[in-house]
Amino acid sequence: MYIPEYFRITDRKIIIDFIKKHSFGILAVISSDDVDAVHIPFLVDEYKENFKLWGHLAEGNMIIENSTNMRGLAIFQGPDAYISPVYYKYKSVPTWDYMTVHVHGTLKFTDFNENTEKIKKLIKFFEPDSPIPDNLSEKPYFPMLKQIKGFYLIPDKIECAFKLGQNHPIEDQMGVLNALTKNENLKEMTDLMEKNISIYKKNMFK
Amino acid sequence: MYIPEYFRITDRKIIIDFIKKHSFGILAVISSDDVDAVHIPFLVDEYKENFKLWGHLAEGNMIIENSTNMRGLAIFQGPDAYISPVYYKYKSVPTWDYMTVHVHGTLKFTDFNENTEKIKKLIKFFEPDSPIPDNLSEKPYFPMLKQIKGFYLIPDKIECAFKLGQNHPIEDQMGVLNALTKNENLKEMTDLMEKNISIYKKNMFK
Repeated sequence: MYIPEYFRITDRKIIIDFIKKHSFGILAVISSDDVDAVHIPFLVDEYKENFKLWGHLAEGNMIIENSTNMRGLAIFQGPDAYISPVYYKYKSVPTWDYMTVHVHGTLKFTDFNENTEKIKKLIKFFEPDSPIPDNLSEKPYFPMLKQIKGFYLIPDKIECAFKLGQNHPIEDQMGVLNALTKNENLKEMTDLMEKNISIYKKNMFK
Repeated sequence: MYIPEYFRITDRKIIIDFIKKHSFGILAVISSDDVDAVHIPFLVDEYKENFKLWGHLAEGNMIIENSTNMRGLAIFQGPDAYISPVYYKYKSVPTWDYMTVHVHGTLKFTDFNENTEKIKKLIKFFEPDSPIPDNLSEKPYFPMLKQIKGFYLIPDKIECAFKLGQNHPIEDQMGVLNALTKNENLKEMTDLMEKNISIYKKNMFK
């Protein structure tokens, strides 16, 4: 992903928090000389300063068949918004603002026992009060566990772009914030725009 | 993408309408033996029974450098929702419902004149009242047009999955609909769930 420097986020905590918040991601892989993708929830498996992602596919899913150490790209998306130049004081072109994390890495399959452990964690993550994790040896859970393929995505390149108009004059950033702030769905985005603007203003008087 | 038959949509009009509604997509490509992706708006270019997608990248974007006829996958996403088994009458596992279109094809670059025409259409599509398309020969628009790489994605495989629990008993589909219907953001999804349920009920009395 091409990321102009003003949009690039490198803070590991911000990146991991973003993945946890938007954990229904896309796994894109190279499959039979084409690029293919699936939509799945990912579990962040943190250790020391680092993390791995765990995911699972239906057994019928051919995209990671017959492969070991294949490359994978996990894509996580936050809010996005069309940005009209009418929001700007200065002349410009329309654009699109968005927030995304890309995790590039290698896929390693996990076995039945590890899949069972991870599925428990996955359910607890999305639904802390679910009674299911205690019952995974029962029907219909146990037979279904045999029908999944679990894998780790072991990251070797992590990219995070929060494209929020940081390259525009402060008046234009304020114009965009003002236009988008009515939309409750964009709160994650407008909160950061507001923060960027207040950091700029604070530095003005230093 | 692995699509169980009950989730597969093949109606061309539904697919094109979905892309137009969710046209800020992802372009995934194979780049230097890895998979890479960018987030961009796509324009649907319809002709006869068919369509092409047009998109553009910043000149600095290396992912389609030095390549002709490379493969591309455009991914368009609709709403998605975690589905708890507590919504169900019958015992089941948690899952995720989602709506997506994948367009696989070959990338062909477009030249300056074609890029200019397409940018006009793109702006008119997202913002019908914008004065910009008439002014593209002025500053700052004209110099910026020279800094983009435009391309067609010419489809050869189109996949559409609306995963809305159609494989579950009707009581469970009703349970999910009931749980999700409070969320206004999922209206596109719950409208279709409602339609599936009403088609089922109508057929019961045939």
